[in-house]
Amino acid sequence: MSVVVRSLAILGQGLIGSSITRAAGERGLAATITVTDASDKVRRRVVELGIGGARVANSNIAAVRDADLVIACVPVGQMGPLAVEIAGHLNPGAILSDVGSVKDDVVRAVAPALPAGVVFVPAHPLAGTEHSGPDHGLADMFVNRWCILTPPEGTPAAAIETVRRFWEGLGARPETMTPSHHDHVLAITSHIPHLIAFSIFHTALRFEEQTSSEVMKFSAGGFRDFTRIASSNPTMWRDIFLANKHAVLAILRQFNQDVAEIADAIEKEDGEKLFQYFSKSRITRRKVIEKEHISVVASREQRVAPLIRPYGSDD
Amino acid sequence: MSVVVRSLAILGQGLIGSSITRAAGERGLAATITVTDASDKVRRRVVELGIGGARVANSNIAAVRDADLVIACVPVGQMGPLAVEIAGHLNPGAILSDVGSVKDDVVRAVAPALPAGVVFVPAHPLAGTEHSGPDHGLADMFVNRWCILTPPEGTPAAAIETVRRFWEGLGARPETMTPSHHDHVLAITSHIPHLIAFSIFHTALRFEEQTSSEVMKFSAGGFRDFTRIASSNPTMWRDIFLANKHAVLAILRQFNQDVAEIADAIEKEDGEKLFQYFSKSRITRRKVIEKEHISVVASREQRVAPLIRPYGSDD
Repeated sequence: MSVVVRSLAILGQGLIGSSITRAAGERGLAATITVTDASDKVRRRVVELGIGGARVANSNIAAVRDADLVIACVPVGQMGPLAVEIAGHLNPGAILSDVGSVKDDVVRAVAPALPAGVVFVPAHPLAGTEHSGPDHGLADMFVNRWCILTPPEGTPAAAIETVRRFWEGLGARPETMTPSHHDHVLAITSHIPHLIAFSIFHTALRFEEQTSSEVMKFSAGGFRDFTRIASSNPTMWRDIFLANKHAVLAILRQFNQDVAEIADAIEKEDGEKLFQYFSKSRITRRKVIEKEHISVVASREQRVAPLIRPYGSDD
Repeated sequence: MSVVVRSLAILGQGLIGSSITRAAGERGLAATITVTDASDKVRRRVVELGIGGARVANSNIAAVRDADLVIACVPVGQMGPLAVEIAGHLNPGAILSDVGSVKDDVVRAVAPALPAGVVFVPAHPLAGTEHSGPDHGLADMFVNRWCILTPPEGTPAAAIETVRRFWEGLGARPETMTPSHHDHVLAITSHIPHLIAFSIFHTALRFEEQTSSEVMKFSAGGFRDFTRIASSNPTMWRDIFLANKHAVLAILRQFNQDVAEIADAIEKEDGEKLFQYFSKSRITRRKVIEKEHISVVASREQRVAPLIRPYGSDD
C-alpha cells in the first residue's frame, strides 16, 4: 500500500480513532501519524500500547499543526466546538474529515468555522464493536465495511478522492451520498433500532419492578440483543439523537404507524392479516439476501455466528 | 441417565420436536419413542435420518396409543384441535405436555378436551435456532436452557414431577410459574421484540420503496438483527400473537409510552433527559450481568459470538 497522505492527524483515540491509527500505521498510509485525545489517561495508554507507531500530541492544536489530513473521531456533538478550536491552526490546503453517525448537522456546524483553503469531507465508516476505548481498536476494523462519504456540494474533487483513497487503503468500501440522505438511511438502519432498544429495556425494567418478575433471568431470544444495544454509550447516543432529530422523528412516526397496524390486527384477531404481514417480512428478507445486497455484512458474519435464536420455533 | 417414562410420544417433528426426539433417544429417557408429523414429507425425512431411534407413526392417534407421556410440538393455534383429536385415544393415566410459547390460552383450549385421568402439564423450553424442520434439530438444544412448566391449579404433583424429570433429563433447567405469569414474561422478553422487529422491517421497506434507497445494503448494526427476527415463521407468530393477545397489547401500551417519552425528549432537545435515560439502561444492564441473572444464557453465548456490533462508537 502506498502513502496516501504525507502527514495524518487523528483527534480522539477511542474505538474508532485507535482502529484508524492501527490500520493506517500497519498499512503505511501516511509518512507520519500524529494522534491525541482529550483524556490524559487515553493519551498515556496510546503511548504504552505504541498504537500504529503514532506520535502522541498533548492537544488538538498541537496534533493538527502541519497535517495534510485531519480525522476527528469524537462524538458528533463535539464536532462544531472542535472545528472552532483547530480552525486557526490548520495547514493551508488541509483536509478535515470525521467518522460521525450524523452528517447534515455536523456539516452545518463545521463548515462555517473553517478558513478558506481548508476542505471538510465528512465520512462515516459503518463499523464498530460493542466495546469502547483504545485497547479495543482493531487494525482490520474497516475491512470490507462500507464507509459513506458525504461531501457537501462544491467540495473539490481532489479532496474527496484523497479521503476515498484513504478509506480504500484501510480496506473499506467507500460510497458517496448527500449528508441528508445519509442521515435518513442511518435513522432507519441504526438510530431508530437503538431508540427502540432503549425504550423496550425501560419497559422491561418497569414491568420487573411492578411485578417483581425476573424478566432478565428469562431474557433469551430477541430481548437479550435489545439489552446489549441498550447498553451503548449514552453520550454518543444523546448526541446522535439531538443531531439527527428531524430524520429520527419522521421515521419514528412511520414506525409507530406500523406498530399500530399490527396491534390493530391483534386486537381484531385478524389472523389472515398478521400472516400476510409476517410472510412479507420473511419473503422480502430472503429476496434481499439472494440479491446479495448485504453481501459485505454477510462476509463479516462468517466471523460472528448468529446470536438471535428465536425459541419455540417448531416447523 | 435412567428411563423417565416407559413409552414416549412426540407429535410434530419440526425443530423442537425433532430435537426432543434426538435428545430423548441419545439419553435413553424412554423405553420406546413413537413420533409423527402432519406432513408426509417430514415423516419420511425422520425415517431417513433415523432420528432418536424412534418409531414413526402415520397419525397422531396411532402415535399416542399406549404412550405414558405425549409431547405436542405444534404451533399453539393447533393445540386445541389436536387435544380434541387425540382425547379419546390417550392411555388412562397418560400425561400430555407441549412446548408452546403461550400458556394461558392453550390451557383453556386443551384442558376441557381431555378425559378424566389424563393430566395436562404445559411446558415451554426457552430454546431454538433461526432454522426450521427436522434436519436442524439438535440433541443438545436444551442443555442449560430454561424450561418453564405452567401446571394449572390442581395438577397432580406426580405428573409435574415426571415432566420436570424429563426436561432435566434433556439437560434443561425446569422452572415453574403460572400460565398467566409466563405469558406476561414472554410477552416482554420475546413477543413484543418480535412485533417490533416485524414493524420496523416494514417501515424500512416502505422507506426503501418511497425513496429508492438501498437501505438493506447499509443494514449493518442493530437493524440487521431485526431483519433476522422478522424472517421468523409466520404461522407460529400469528398463533402466538392471537393466543397471547391481552398480555401483548398491555405491554405494547407501556412500550409505546416509553417510545413517546424518548421522542418527546428528542423533540424538546432535552439532552440531559436523554443522557439519564440511556445511562440508566447501561448501568442496569451491567448490574444484571454482574448478578448473573442471565448466567445460563451467557453460557450459551460462549458458542455464539456477539452479532450486534454498534458502529460509530468512539470512546
